[in-house]
Amino acid sequence: MPCRSGESALDEGGIRALLVHVPAWHVDNNGSVVCLMRKFAFKDFKDGLVFVNLVGELAEVEDHHPEMTLAWGNVTVRWWTYSLGGLHRNDFIMAARTDELYSQLMR
Amino acid sequence: MPCRSGESALDEGGIRALLVHVPAWHVDNNGSVVCLMRKFAFKDFKDGLVFVNLVGELAEVEDHHPEMTLAWGNVTVRWWTYSLGGLHRNDFIMAARTDELYSQLMR
Repeated sequence: MPCRSGESALDEGGIRALLVHVPAWHVDNNGSVVCLMRKFAFKDFKDGLVFVNLVGELAEVEDHHPEMTLAWGNVTVRWWTYSLGGLHRNDFIMAARTDELYSQLMR
Repeated sequence: MPCRSGESALDEGGIRALLVHVPAWHVDNNGSVVCLMRKFAFKDFKDGLVFVNLVGELAEVEDHHPEMTLAWGNVTVRWWTYSLGGLHRNDFIMAARTDELYSQLMR
């Protein structure tokens, strides 16, 4: 959904209600901004890089971009909405779609 | 150069002597491990992703892997030698080669 101007970031109750739909993610405080975080495991560096590219493609299509940290054997993904300085419903949708990409890759 | 077993991480003097050759990098304490860090700027997310793939290719060829954090408009690269729990001369070589890849991409 488009993020309308004037909208504000989700509050604690709103976050808690949506978090049950993406149980593998947790709420993290990345510096000072609240974000959704999940660390994904891979058997090596190369597979992690493939995943970064898949999530990167999704990010470009949706014009909503995460922060991703690629290391040997794992990728940490963080979603938040820059313009709100916090979480929007869209971040939870992106988290769920990131989970789907991971499941497809691991199949 | 191959990293021989029995070698130890560079000490402060050794780090200082090599750091002059990669002046855009600084020594960072990533958690508890000393590493070389540089944040590279890009005009958008997509260009950062291209760079992550270039550095990833180099890492696979050399079998020495960095940690890379991709965000909209920047990529932070960290090099260190896991088996030494610190910095090896090779990390400075990889940092210099990362700089070269960035220069080529920005040309």
